[in-house]
Amino acid sequence: MADRKAPIGVFDSGVGGLTVAREIMRQIPEERIVYFGDTARVPYGSKSRDTIIKYSRQIIRFLKTQGVKAIVVACNTASAVALEDVRKELDIPIIGVIKAGARTAAAATHNGRIGIIATETTINSKVYTHFLEELNPGLCVIGKACPLFVPLVEEGTFLKDPITEEIASRYLQELKEKQIDTLILGCTHYPLIRSTVGRVMGENVTLVNPAYETARELKALLIEEGIGNTSLQEGQEQTHTFYVSDATEKFQQFAESILPCSVKDTTQINIEEY
Amino acid sequence: MADRKAPIGVFDSGVGGLTVAREIMRQIPEERIVYFGDTARVPYGSKSRDTIIKYSRQIIRFLKTQGVKAIVVACNTASAVALEDVRKELDIPIIGVIKAGARTAAAATHNGRIGIIATETTINSKVYTHFLEELNPGLCVIGKACPLFVPLVEEGTFLKDPITEEIASRYLQELKEKQIDTLILGCTHYPLIRSTVGRVMGENVTLVNPAYETARELKALLIEEGIGNTSLQEGQEQTHTFYVSDATEKFQQFAESILPCSVKDTTQINIEEY
Repeated sequence: MADRKAPIGVFDSGVGGLTVAREIMRQIPEERIVYFGDTARVPYGSKSRDTIIKYSRQIIRFLKTQGVKAIVVACNTASAVALEDVRKELDIPIIGVIKAGARTAAAATHNGRIGIIATETTINSKVYTHFLEELNPGLCVIGKACPLFVPLVEEGTFLKDPITEEIASRYLQELKEKQIDTLILGCTHYPLIRSTVGRVMGENVTLVNPAYETARELKALLIEEGIGNTSLQEGQEQTHTFYVSDATEKFQQFAESILPCSVKDTTQINIEEY
Repeated sequence: MADRKAPIGVFDSGVGGLTVAREIMRQIPEERIVYFGDTARVPYGSKSRDTIIKYSRQIIRFLKTQGVKAIVVACNTASAVALEDVRKELDIPIIGVIKAGARTAAAATHNGRIGIIATETTINSKVYTHFLEELNPGLCVIGKACPLFVPLVEEGTFLKDPITEEIASRYLQELKEKQIDTLILGCTHYPLIRSTVGRVMGENVTLVNPAYETARELKALLIEEGIGNTSLQEGQEQTHTFYVSDATEKFQQFAESILPCSVKDTTQINIEEY
């Protein structure tokens, strides 16, 4: 039986997964998070399946040393290509972000035309398409890789900028032409440029951020497995812990701008040793 | 005594170093190259000094298993922060790209105002400024980090594009205002967007590509140490070997577009094991 007070492990290639961590903090404030951002090896989106499986295994081994009771893969690329392989090897629950995003989009669409923007590796995996067609074989699913979005977000100064809007217009043109009415932000970095994507797509297109639904799924899972934390006192706040594989300071600055909590306790570890 | 027929090791974080390999092939066609591109961990330019030193040590250990007689660090970031540390541990000659670029720029400037564009880590290291001031303390040196240039080049489809020109205009504005007459392309990816940078800066600014001077320096070094290859027959062509840490196919496609030789023999290795 898992310890109810044990933390939830959350990982991503970098800062993108913080958008999922933020949503977990909002919806399940009683849970303690141990976050790992693989800042030494970001981005994942252009890397091969085998490499991402290897990286995910190392990170999971590290999170296990922190005594986590469940793991959230807060990275679409890793969820798309590594989740099924690593789940088989694990004795604790693990969830990704893709099923949640697919479910929300399938429920939101009116005309049955759903777009997905994501990294190259996520799009090439066709995992979103697969889940969506499982939910409803009548859906028309159109994927588009946007490889510059992650560097644009990580760059920091281009978040609200005409250049980002111009690049978004270019990437999204095809999805507009195909008249989608629902667009999945299929990379955890993308909610950080949500307003730009929204402006380009127009107000008739619903943007789906899988973070919200992922946090809901996690909450349900904790209840189902009977492992939710019940010991936090009224008015008490959880303390979360952050680990990165490189450049602690840059991560902290970014994280402080996204999260409602302090990120001062960020520690750099050598992930290749795990 | 080193074997004259032994190859030259050349490495970079990804495809950028191919611009240096190309120049070595042109100037010293009798030499055989073993190239390593760290495509699993690209980009280096936003990573910390310690991480880049660790990665460089792993790569050098790998190149030594290939029997190289000399090493070229065809990456400005690694040259800036790792070269001096790894040189001490090596029993074969190793050169970077920064001294060569600094020398060429110092010789080219008329008004003594030199700009450098490079990654964040290279600019923050101030290594170019240090070398230039050593060559001529009267020089005025202005550095500018351009973190989006590497992803733009690696993206592939934006090489000749108004968006790249717009981003370049933004990054280069300050250097234009400061009236530099010489600009060092301080990242081996940048020669691939040389025409865009040239258009933005105007024809009165000399662009310095350290690759040319690095190949010259290597040639002189091989003669000085008596380790140049003398056994290639007239009309014979050298065969080069390529290794990457991920995504062989994408690297091959890119390399074929840059190099005058076949890149079919590209092998993926697990660099973390070295």
